[in-house]
Amino acid sequence: MHISRRNVLIEWGDCDPAGIVFYPRYFAWFDASTANHFASVGLLKPELIARYGVVGFPMVDTQGKFYTPSKFGDEVTIETTITGFGKSSFDVHHRLLRGDKLAVEGYEKRVLVKRADDGDGIKSVQVPEEIRTLFQR
Amino acid sequence: MHISRRNVLIEWGDCDPAGIVFYPRYFAWFDASTANHFASVGLLKPELIARYGVVGFPMVDTQGKFYTPSKFGDEVTIETTITGFGKSSFDVHHRLLRGDKLAVEGYEKRVLVKRADDGDGIKSVQVPEEIRTLFQR
Amino acid sequence: MHISRRNVLIEWGDCDPAGIVFYPRYFAWFDASTANHFASVGLLKPELIARYGVVGFPMVDTQGKFYTPSKFGDEVTIETTITGFGKSSFDVHHRLLRGDKLAVEGYEKRVLVKRADDGDGIKSVQVPEEIRTLFQR
Amino acid sequence: MHISRRNVLIEWGDCDPAGIVFYPRYFAWFDASTANHFASVGLLKPELIARYGVVGFPMVDTQGKFYTPSKFGDEVTIETTITGFGKSSFDVHHRLLRGDKLAVEGYEKRVLVKRADDGDGIKSVQVPEEIRTLFQR
Repeated sequence: MHISRRNVLIEWGDCDPAGIVFYPRYFAWFDASTANHFASVGLLKPELIARYGVVGFPMVDTQGKFYTPSKFGDEVTIETTITGFGKSSFDVHHRLLRGDKLAVEGYEKRVLVKRADDGDGIKSVQVPEEIRTLFQR
Repeated sequence: MHISRRNVLIEWGDCDPAGIVFYPRYFAWFDASTANHFASVGLLKPELIARYGVVGFPMVDTQGKFYTPSKFGDEVTIETTITGFGKSSFDVHHRLLRGDKLAVEGYEKRVLVKRADDGDGIKSVQVPEEIRTLFQR
Repeated sequence: MHISRRNVLIEWGDCDPAGIVFYPRYFAWFDASTANHFASVGLLKPELIARYGVVGFPMVDTQGKFYTPSKFGDEVTIETTITGFGKSSFDVHHRLLRGDKLAVEGYEKRVLVKRADDGDGIKSVQVPEEIRTLFQR
Repeated sequence: MHISRRNVLIEWGDCDPAGIVFYPRYFAWFDASTANHFASVGLLKPELIARYGVVGFPMVDTQGKFYTPSKFGDEVTIETTITGFGKSSFDVHHRLLRGDKLAVEGYEKRVLVKRADDGDGIKSVQVPEEIRTLFQR
């Protein structure tokens, strides 16, 4: 499966009084990495939303494993891949590396959704075949 | 085991362009709920840090399960409990409820750490018996 | 003019490696305090949006003055008042107090906006007289 | 005076339910731009802290002027310059541009601080001459 990469410079405001990254920031970076992963195959999230009438791909289940802390000034790389597709869902795996050291891993299950017909709330939609195809190479 | 509760009002800035909570915010609330859980047995995090010479209890592994989205203006309750202690770690379970509906669950494994002896980096320390005792009731 | 008050407990994740609040967090709290100020006169932001067909009241100009830092575990109070109305704008003043000490002041000029007729972008709308009246007491 | 530039890609999680950047995010980016400005003359913030025994340069006064909103997927450039030095303070000006359109301006007054002698709290220190010199070209 296709792998995308993105660099993140850890800023002062990403870190907590212990001087290390406040872990919810990793999830924000992983979210951006998933958007970047779509962009890396030519499907920008704004276009995805406009073209398929969806509102996004909210998170259903996510896990973060933190092996070694990072601090401000560190430059890290996030490697992202989609590890599988369900009917209306897909699984994402992120590896955050500092140098060649694996610092954090993130796992996501997301589901593609559109507005519900009553205009209130959201409901899942099938992942279009052409989206699956984009990543299977 | 002891259960603590905390209410959160979901603000405009917690939500994304789909109008629902941007999920890393749940992890920030869960982090505050874990601190509040310690406070609820009389152990404020600043005191914990000062009394035991630790720098905090960073996350080792966390998982979030998102059952139903919440939006700005919603008031939610987070119920928190420590489900177990390891030698230097402990497991936390958060249940985020909107009314009586379970909206999000969070699972955490944290480890108590202090500064390493060389002043650089951190290392785990054993959870003091008196901390364990505080929650076992 | 009407004054509203809101308490904020400063969390670990609100603070930076110097152990003090990362200042953009003050702006997020002030934003919530402005929403709370409307709620305090019975006008919840979701209702405001639904009733008047607006998308919100984005910031045009804001200033923060930081007199003394706060750290995690501190409890602060934010006092909010609308100091004036323009045709489609209004000015807000926030005073963040720790005990009786003024720690931060925030000034805001906001403008009430709705979607532009072409569906893209936003444009200002006049502040309804009944909104002005709510705060003038 | 020296000008530094930094690009920011606006992410989904930076935006609010109106689909535009939640303005406290601009302040977080400006904070990173000030750190980057120091880095651009060879003075990384971690080194600054280590070399001069300071804990950072907290904000005393900041203002943001928002001319036109940006949305997710937008790429913006932040141009940063130090406009003046006081005894222990300095003034920063940020211009956030989308294409050649000025979207946001930020003004900052910061002060260089170190830990107070009693170990609690912080106090201002004079800006070292060699720091001033770095930017005056």
